[in-house]
Amino acid sequence: MKTVTVVTELRAGGNEVGFNAAYPEGMDACLCSLVSDAGYKVNLIHTSPEHDGSALTDEILQETDVLIWWGHAFHHFVLDSVAERVANRVNRGMGIIFLHSAHFSKPFKKLMGTSCALSWREANEKERVWAIDPVHPIARGIPESFVIEREEMYGEPFYIPTPDELVFLGWFKGGEVMRSGCVWRRGRGKVFFFQPGHETFPTYKNGHVRRIILNAIEYIMPDEVASSLGGAHVPVPLEPLD
Amino acid sequence: MKTVTVVTELRAGGNEVGFNAAYPEGMDACLCSLVSDAGYKVNLIHTSPEHDGSALTDEILQETDVLIWWGHAFHHFVLDSVAERVANRVNRGMGIIFLHSAHFSKPFKKLMGTSCALSWREANEKERVWAIDPVHPIARGIPESFVIEREEMYGEPFYIPTPDELVFLGWFKGGEVMRSGCVWRRGRGKVFFFQPGHETFPTYKNGHVRRIILNAIEYIMPDEVASSLGGAHVPVPLEPLD
Amino acid sequence: MKTVTVVTELRAGGNEVGFNAAYPEGMDACLCSLVSDAGYKVNLIHTSPEHDGSALTDEILQETDVLIWWGHAFHHFVLDSVAERVANRVNRGMGIIFLHSAHFSKPFKKLMGTSCALSWREANEKERVWAIDPVHPIARGIPESFVIEREEMYGEPFYIPTPDELVFLGWFKGGEVMRSGCVWRRGRGKVFFFQPGHETFPTYKNGHVRRIILNAIEYIMPDEVASSLGGAHVPVPLEPLD
Amino acid sequence: MKTVTVVTELRAGGNEVGFNAAYPEGMDACLCSLVSDAGYKVNLIHTSPEHDGSALTDEILQETDVLIWWGHAFHHFVLDSVAERVANRVNRGMGIIFLHSAHFSKPFKKLMGTSCALSWREANEKERVWAIDPVHPIARGIPESFVIEREEMYGEPFYIPTPDELVFLGWFKGGEVMRSGCVWRRGRGKVFFFQPGHETFPTYKNGHVRRIILNAIEYIMPDEVASSLGGAHVPVPLEPLD
Repeated sequence: MKTVTVVTELRAGGNEVGFNAAYPEGMDACLCSLVSDAGYKVNLIHTSPEHDGSALTDEILQETDVLIWWGHAFHHFVLDSVAERVANRVNRGMGIIFLHSAHFSKPFKKLMGTSCALSWREANEKERVWAIDPVHPIARGIPESFVIEREEMYGEPFYIPTPDELVFLGWFKGGEVMRSGCVWRRGRGKVFFFQPGHETFPTYKNGHVRRIILNAIEYIMPDEVASSLGGAHVPVPLEPLD
Repeated sequence: MKTVTVVTELRAGGNEVGFNAAYPEGMDACLCSLVSDAGYKVNLIHTSPEHDGSALTDEILQETDVLIWWGHAFHHFVLDSVAERVANRVNRGMGIIFLHSAHFSKPFKKLMGTSCALSWREANEKERVWAIDPVHPIARGIPESFVIEREEMYGEPFYIPTPDELVFLGWFKGGEVMRSGCVWRRGRGKVFFFQPGHETFPTYKNGHVRRIILNAIEYIMPDEVASSLGGAHVPVPLEPLD
Repeated sequence: MKTVTVVTELRAGGNEVGFNAAYPEGMDACLCSLVSDAGYKVNLIHTSPEHDGSALTDEILQETDVLIWWGHAFHHFVLDSVAERVANRVNRGMGIIFLHSAHFSKPFKKLMGTSCALSWREANEKERVWAIDPVHPIARGIPESFVIEREEMYGEPFYIPTPDELVFLGWFKGGEVMRSGCVWRRGRGKVFFFQPGHETFPTYKNGHVRRIILNAIEYIMPDEVASSLGGAHVPVPLEPLD
Repeated sequence: MKTVTVVTELRAGGNEVGFNAAYPEGMDACLCSLVSDAGYKVNLIHTSPEHDGSALTDEILQETDVLIWWGHAFHHFVLDSVAERVANRVNRGMGIIFLHSAHFSKPFKKLMGTSCALSWREANEKERVWAIDPVHPIARGIPESFVIEREEMYGEPFYIPTPDELVFLGWFKGGEVMRSGCVWRRGRGKVFFFQPGHETFPTYKNGHVRRIILNAIEYIMPDEVASSLGGAHVPVPLEPLD
């Protein structure tokens, strides 16, 4: 059985950033039920000022095939060593999905090598998401464009490496555009970033968004995660040198 | 006047890894004279068990337009904070060239987000370097292929992100191939990796290799280095929301 | 002296598609003066139901370093053999800029290998052009975004190969987004597509658009155009086979 | 049931280029049995000076999900209109595999937009194929490198657009390297080029090569082939213009 681990700051009621209107049950529960209903085993890890990510133990990582990361206010409380072992496992094959404000999380920045900075605005504005690669597996079942009635604006320039696969572009009512769905290969693993998902709106209850997340899990699911990061001393030449 | 800073472990006579046959004057001197003869101001920084890279001060970085990094045995002596500020400056626009075993240097791994592992063999074998993009500015004046009589073998799989521009491939007598000249964009800066240059062979005295390094300096030279990593709060929408 | 050849359907007064309000002097004259004022020698070729592109002779092509193509209503009057020799010269090194509705011209489709289809609407709507790669040479001197008050909408999905360099994205008031500035390498030559430029609006009088066109000419200007398309029989192995 | 159509010049006994030693049963039969044993319905189309490809009718194309093309001596006998309808169907979703000398076939050149020229030598020399993206679905089950004892050399520079996915590199005993396994997206379809397969050697009986071809069929198999090439007039804006 494939395992998906969800790392998030948000929880019902007691979540530290205090937004409960969009997800009375907690965004954590919303994401976990999406994943478990699709037949995956789910682990849930919370981060907060008191939770530095070390609950994402080696044991949990070792059984994780795909990791979903949502963070916003507490990125800096996550230990560097946790980001390091997440990035290491991605490079050995684990898939990883970074949602929305996870663009500034430590593991995303570590995997990208860039600042991952962007422009932003909280104005409850409309976003249209465009599937510019309509036959990409992550866009399976998604219309050419769909609307998210209220989102935080995240706009270009978005300081990321050139995506290996650019799947979605976002249009914002207020005038901005965004590379809102991007895939990169890192070592033996795949990374998917998806921009929608501000915590004050029920974005992860949108049917298209849910489908995209499930498609992405399937697309970046590894056959297996390797034990090594690659590299080999090959003292004997494959072909004769003389 | 544009400034190029050279960071290297190797120095004449007293160099710690003990190879002086190929560069009696020091590989440091060889690289520095190449750069200064081309009209650039040059800074030279040594790393070693006793030199943790902190000699690459903010002041020196601030005047550096392009940085050349060669390291091998002492990568782990370089402070994380030094790698951090190098990567930061690249993302603000500085060009950077990683030579040979610098594939395992801290700043390269930080900018790539991968293990940067590869296969290797020290067998004094012949390499042929192929310019697969013959009109790329870095290949200007370089023949379709040229020979380096003796090199350390560095071979695929090379665990790097997809290059934005693949300029050179390497062929090794012993049977391996290598993406030996690659360009990536990171933020506002450009990164060039070039594989030849083992310290026991006079690779950096090869005319084609010298031309490639000078071409690369020119190609990745920024117009300017920005003061910020990008990103902006845009509270007022550019277009009316209603 | 470098030579730029402009191919267009549009001419002052007598232009066949009948739009003279935006360019009383002719869009042809507008583009030609932009180029000649920048110090290039300019050739002008018209296409129309009576002009099948054969005026773009081998002699003119042979002196052309960069070609600019604007077409709309008369694509199918251009001879296949003309498209063939244009594409051939691009593959030998000539730069080429396709403006706006030239996305459906024969040489563009020939160089792309795709349908180049897109969605469109003539509704005099506002476009915002975003420079998503702010340090790209074609974006030199261009602000993060700028407005074209009235444009024809051209939107995604745009059926093109993955651009080698994605420089601009377009935002349209009516809800669409567009990869509006793209670079591809084809053989030894570079192709730039730029989406703005409907004939009923004075888009090519916009200072930013003019700067972009001049930047692009400079960026895709070849050192030289080769006489051959490449390929070679190499009967004697470079290395011994036994 | 998914359908794979094989187009080839070669046939047992009577094949026009006269090489029967490697494939006494015909290379056509060798490829067809590989595909049919994997559970696909197979169509076989021959090209020759007397067969201009028109046997690849609209009806056959319409049921074809993936097409495999091998050609060498008779490219120019294939009708332009046949190449046109093949490329059209690829852009609507059909997968296509070009083997070896099909790099110079009309449909490949049409889909690439480049000369597709390369260097070559018939010297019965050893090739090593390297899987540089070891987790790519087309490399599933393939070792890091494998040997083809005798092949025609095909080498760089290979005048193709930048591959969307570079899966294999080739090493030749005689000194050349080659991007020997490449994927491109064209419209809704995927193209795979694989370099080994000269007609005088039994390359398509090599277990790794067979696995690669089957992997590729699976990887580029479309969910469906669309009826249109895309593009739409959208007269009513999605969002209000005022």
